[in-house]
Amino acid sequence: MNDKATTTRTPVLLPEPTLRRLPWYFAYVSTLRTPEVEYISSTRIAEALDVDPSQIAKDLSFLGIRGKTRIGYQIEELRQALNDYLGFGQRHNAIMMGTGSLGAALIADSGLQRYGLNIVAGIDINPTLIGSRIGGVEIYAPDRLESLVQELSIKIGIIAVPVESAQDIADLAARSGIKAIWNFTPSRIRVPEGVVISNTSIYSHLAVMYNRLATISDSKR
Amino acid sequence: MNDKATTTRTPVLLPEPTLRRLPWYFAYVSTLRTPEVEYISSTRIAEALDVDPSQIAKDLSFLGIRGKTRIGYQIEELRQALNDYLGFGQRHNAIMMGTGSLGAALIADSGLQRYGLNIVAGIDINPTLIGSRIGGVEIYAPDRLESLVQELSIKIGIIAVPVESAQDIADLAARSGIKAIWNFTPSRIRVPEGVVISNTSIYSHLAVMYNRLATISDSKR
Repeated sequence: MNDKATTTRTPVLLPEPTLRRLPWYFAYVSTLRTPEVEYISSTRIAEALDVDPSQIAKDLSFLGIRGKTRIGYQIEELRQALNDYLGFGQRHNAIMMGTGSLGAALIADSGLQRYGLNIVAGIDINPTLIGSRIGGVEIYAPDRLESLVQELSIKIGIIAVPVESAQDIADLAARSGIKAIWNFTPSRIRVPEGVVISNTSIYSHLAVMYNRLATISDSKR
Repeated sequence: MNDKATTTRTPVLLPEPTLRRLPWYFAYVSTLRTPEVEYISSTRIAEALDVDPSQIAKDLSFLGIRGKTRIGYQIEELRQALNDYLGFGQRHNAIMMGTGSLGAALIADSGLQRYGLNIVAGIDINPTLIGSRIGGVEIYAPDRLESLVQELSIKIGIIAVPVESAQDIADLAARSGIKAIWNFTPSRIRVPEGVVISNTSIYSHLAVMYNRLATISDSKR
């Protein structure tokens, strides 16, 4: 930490590990907003989150945020800077592609909205779903995708279709002008250059957890 | 690839990157189960998943699976071996801790069940939820956790509470005999030694995606 003035906040391509840690800092300082605590040291954040203090200082310096010597970071400033920088305070229009159990579940998760994700429509091939609403979000046929993307300024497509349809729907999304794809299927999908892909295979986490559980039980035998 | 016989299948502590890739292979070969295709080469898997073929051969060798020279892997054998090894074919009893929008959504996601996760109960502090059922799963008060863990042989606790309660509920889970915690909050939580922790912060993925989108738009200006 030092007393240097903050630098620029223009979005730069941050290293992915840094980008994954920043939301932890945001979540943590969001829990601290009490009038009694005004500053927090990187050492205390480090203890709470089990991250090296120098790593925290380095991560935050990417945002032009520097703590004051011996005092630390002003909590509300830090929270606001992280919120702005991470884009959680903006609205990012998205479409849910596949509104079966997982898709409908994600539409219902109000947490996503608090983090800036604005699901404005859904598509599905199931004729009984087309024309219906899930949590206020209307479901359309897949052939409406391109016009929806244009009319509703949709940048993000969330894929929650069955695994065997994942690549097809990703191709359709890219052709329809979607700029970023958030893939929830366990399938790896390929996208054209210039389209952002983010994979959240919740089932991969299950595999890791089951393996760790099995090896723990083994070592206790 | 070579013709060597398969080796042991005892669970070993696999490197996490390997464990994350294995479900991709599983998902991919699951889509191939047609009578027409019996074998698949690592080259074809590699093309479909954008993973190096030698990496695939190495990952699968951890399971004692080796392809036949110039033929590849027998698809149904490979699928079955991955399913067994990853534990997707077993039932892992789990409890949902926090049954608000995300928790209820995850209970409703039938995909988790297909991957071996058996959610048998939920806990919540909301008195209007206690005693109710979500998708057939009964919701209890948090003080019932320890007895539920014993009575229902629960190994896994899924955390979907608000971020500020994440550590408290993790502590309660560990005290109650939970062996693995799957944390869906953006908070980092600490667990005692011997308890498995798996973090799936879906909001961290949002941060990465927003940043990539912002930098793409910038480079086009």
